[in-house]
Amino acid sequence: MRISELARRGGVTTATVKYYLREGLVPPGELTSSTQAVYGDAHVARLRLVRALLGPGKLSIAQAKDVLAVIDDPGDDMFEALGAAQAAAYGAPDDVDTSRALALVERAGWRVDPASREVGQLAEALAALEDAGFDVPPSVMEGYVAAAERIGALELDAIPQDPAEALRYAVLGTILVEPLLLALRRLGEQHASAVRFAPSTD
Amino acid sequence: MRISELARRGGVTTATVKYYLREGLVPPGELTSSTQAVYGDAHVARLRLVRALLGPGKLSIAQAKDVLAVIDDPGDDMFEALGAAQAAAYGAPDDVDTSRALALVERAGWRVDPASREVGQLAEALAALEDAGFDVPPSVMEGYVAAAERIGALELDAIPQDPAEALRYAVLGTILVEPLLLALRRLGEQHASAVRFAPSTD
Repeated sequence: MRISELARRGGVTTATVKYYLREGLVPPGELTSSTQAVYGDAHVARLRLVRALLGPGKLSIAQAKDVLAVIDDPGDDMFEALGAAQAAAYGAPDDVDTSRALALVERAGWRVDPASREVGQLAEALAALEDAGFDVPPSVMEGYVAAAERIGALELDAIPQDPAEALRYAVLGTILVEPLLLALRRLGEQHASAVRFAPSTD
Repeated sequence: MRISELARRGGVTTATVKYYLREGLVPPGELTSSTQAVYGDAHVARLRLVRALLGPGKLSIAQAKDVLAVIDDPGDDMFEALGAAQAAAYGAPDDVDTSRALALVERAGWRVDPASREVGQLAEALAALEDAGFDVPPSVMEGYVAAAERIGALELDAIPQDPAEALRYAVLGTILVEPLLLALRRLGEQHASAVRFAPSTD
């Protein structure tokens, strides 16, 4: 297909496709003349993935490029590749006191790397809540931890066996499932509120 | 205290405090001369809240201003105030097909407003996953829905009785608890992975 058809099927303008091509986010098409190229279904899929990462995934062009580079060529060490993809997507947290985050993780009985980026992210989130003068009641915090533990176990059960597929699943699952989880939580709150304050008359 | 002390206790530079004052994010201090003002503990608390909203909460200056305006003066209709705060923080989703989101909500048996912003957010999240070619297995999706339902119920149990306090809790709880939940999920995945792939030798 021509670039105009690729753009249409990807749900973006031709100018946007050209921009992604220049940035290397979408691979070049097959040249049919010095000024024209044709594209295939794989280009459509890639274009949609890029759109998802930049839109709902909220990555910058540079972050999306780095994440896609890891997915495209993960190398032999999947654990290292996963770390590289997460570093690209989230950056490193600032130098932050992790003692409260580590205490929370220990109470949960979780086996995690105390030096990992995620512990830093938890520490930052806890610090922000404290800064805002917002106390999460212990019963609610326990509920959050229990939910995260169940979700982690469920997700791991569903991870593909093939290492490269598993990496793609883990990276996209982290970046793109987050908006899903946040939307579900808001709807879960709305439902709880409806049940409490507007009892059904059925 | 002077502005320099306020800045120190708020963890920002004096220039940043001046910027927030100009933008109206932090209320003015009490003038002691035509060029000097003093600030109190309430200013420190406000400054930290602003920092939390702009940093981990990822709001823009304009969004933070709108959210704080609602918290400061919620008016009589708390439901309307909550909607206004969420509109300020999240904007309206694009015009998006909500049929799959509504089907998911119906399967969950949730009582939510089909025209609400959150249903649109869910629809956008589902569309992004589809665009990326990422299938959430049904068992995992059920786990997400169950977790969101439990979390909504727990959070509602903990909401303050006073309407203005409840509004503050709901708004900050949505914006600032999100980074906490995402960090916990990533750690829950790390824990599940450690349990699976690196059995304890205890």
